[in-house]
Amino acid sequence: MTKRKIVIALGGNAILTDNPSAQAQQKALKQTADYLVQFVKNGDDIVVTHGNGPQVGNLMLQQAAADSLKNPAMPLDTCVAMTQGSIGYWLQAALTEALKENDINKNVVSLVTQVEVSEKDTAFSHPSKPVGPFLSKEDADTEMATSDATFIEDAGRGWRKVVPSPKPITIKEIKVIDTLVSNGVIPVTVGGGGIPVIKDENGRYTGIEAVIDKDFASQTLAASLHADLLVILTNVEHVSINYKLPNEKNLTKATVKQMKNYIEQGQFLPGSMLPKVEAAVNFVEANPSGKAVITSLENIQAVIDENGGTIITSGSD
Amino acid sequence: MTKRKIVIALGGNAILTDNPSAQAQQKALKQTADYLVQFVKNGDDIVVTHGNGPQVGNLMLQQAAADSLKNPAMPLDTCVAMTQGSIGYWLQAALTEALKENDINKNVVSLVTQVEVSEKDTAFSHPSKPVGPFLSKEDADTEMATSDATFIEDAGRGWRKVVPSPKPITIKEIKVIDTLVSNGVIPVTVGGGGIPVIKDENGRYTGIEAVIDKDFASQTLAASLHADLLVILTNVEHVSINYKLPNEKNLTKATVKQMKNYIEQGQFLPGSMLPKVEAAVNFVEANPSGKAVITSLENIQAVIDENGGTIITSGSD
Repeated sequence: MTKRKIVIALGGNAILTDNPSAQAQQKALKQTADYLVQFVKNGDDIVVTHGNGPQVGNLMLQQAAADSLKNPAMPLDTCVAMTQGSIGYWLQAALTEALKENDINKNVVSLVTQVEVSEKDTAFSHPSKPVGPFLSKEDADTEMATSDATFIEDAGRGWRKVVPSPKPITIKEIKVIDTLVSNGVIPVTVGGGGIPVIKDENGRYTGIEAVIDKDFASQTLAASLHADLLVILTNVEHVSINYKLPNEKNLTKATVKQMKNYIEQGQFLPGSMLPKVEAAVNFVEANPSGKAVITSLENIQAVIDENGGTIITSGSD
Repeated sequence: MTKRKIVIALGGNAILTDNPSAQAQQKALKQTADYLVQFVKNGDDIVVTHGNGPQVGNLMLQQAAADSLKNPAMPLDTCVAMTQGSIGYWLQAALTEALKENDINKNVVSLVTQVEVSEKDTAFSHPSKPVGPFLSKEDADTEMATSDATFIEDAGRGWRKVVPSPKPITIKEIKVIDTLVSNGVIPVTVGGGGIPVIKDENGRYTGIEAVIDKDFASQTLAASLHADLLVILTNVEHVSINYKLPNEKNLTKATVKQMKNYIEQGQFLPGSMLPKVEAAVNFVEANPSGKAVITSLENIQAVIDENGGTIITSGSD
């Protein structure tokens, strides 16, 4: 039972399953918090991150529905900030309640967090992440003709705007996060992957229309904090290879080298397990004494016992 | 030039003048930040608070415009949290930039902040704060017949829902704010007066449909932090008595006792200067070694020189 510094990235199902009401999301987050508190009971310092896909999508629809000169739709960077507010509030309240139920006297706070990306990231020439409302082909064509926006046909459901998904470089509030952890506070941070900002030629930062993958942002966070463990939560207990084939196999422990081989073999689904595996590998490469675990929320006790989920190590130990 | 701990409450005009676009609000906040940075240059520790009236109103309109089972409007507590995210982001970025321009190496962070109010506050039986969209009389009557909501006719512009405006009791994240100030960080907190929460019979906190006056929340914050100074910014340089009368007089220095007399005389407009004066008086009463100043953003240098605005003291010094 060694005290560790742990960054925990919540999967989408930790917040929203089928009901998008505030009440249902708050209830789901209370269940999530009940699991997370097990780390705190174990004496670990935790930092919690979360996605915001469905929430920012719904917010953009709401903004579009009322868009006018008197009530203009907010740009994507501001929308991300707003979901850091809403989800951060729910999570902070849920964690505080779960800690209290366990007689643990610790403070939790959600931080508005900006993450620097590079204007030169190749993602900016290949927007890939669908956001916002579904449009008809005609409306999408009009938007594309009158703006810089790119739209793609999304799984038969209509046309959606796609935005770049650049890689995180640094977390602008990293020193504050570090100070809070050192003072025993549990920070909720880089919500939705963080508010993407770029540095211009004068050294000024400005928000940009992009979405940062929350697992990559969590990896950058964990590496910057020299965390002992990065826990990436998803809806399965283990990463598997030969997925859905007769010879499917759960991975319990793997080295960075092994995982990189599996990535090359195309074992992991892009947009699904692949970014999680890449984030785990990147973290351990940046921080070889650390480990990464990919598993489900329900399997957290096994992570604490150090034998659960898919554990990725540098292989040097 | 003594180092002081200062809580600064921004007035609405520090964020939004006439243009509600994200860009215009960010620009206004940069100008605001340029003023605030003068305190930091003077060596003072600052904590910044802000209102959210127009922003939360617009957000509620957007939520209402898209309200459906798949995209339900968020309740008021969550909407307040969302504006803490958006305005917090803009302010944090603006302050960071202003500090950098002045070669000051300090971190700024916006915190999601909950403020406890009492279910027994008389405000809950007298909802008074208009929020959200304007309705026709017919629609307001329907809403009142089918829910607990109260609507009032608002200055000839239509019918608006009114919510309670209870007094703040404690700031739930006060220890975190204190830790950050002690570590040289500039926190942005209690945005929009804070997310109102009440404690139920089991000691659990839940969000509630209410709006906390941001000046009262700032007063509670300043008293809890044992601040040396509470600066309440508005659009005039001084509080005046006999307002708009031939014998109108600017107040430069006043004791709590004098201000209470003026309040009794009905010198200050409810919903305008009155809550600011009350907040200033309450802070100095709770913290007699502290001072409160009510003035304009443009007059900040005079506040630093300790001779500007309307200064309220306990009168014991």
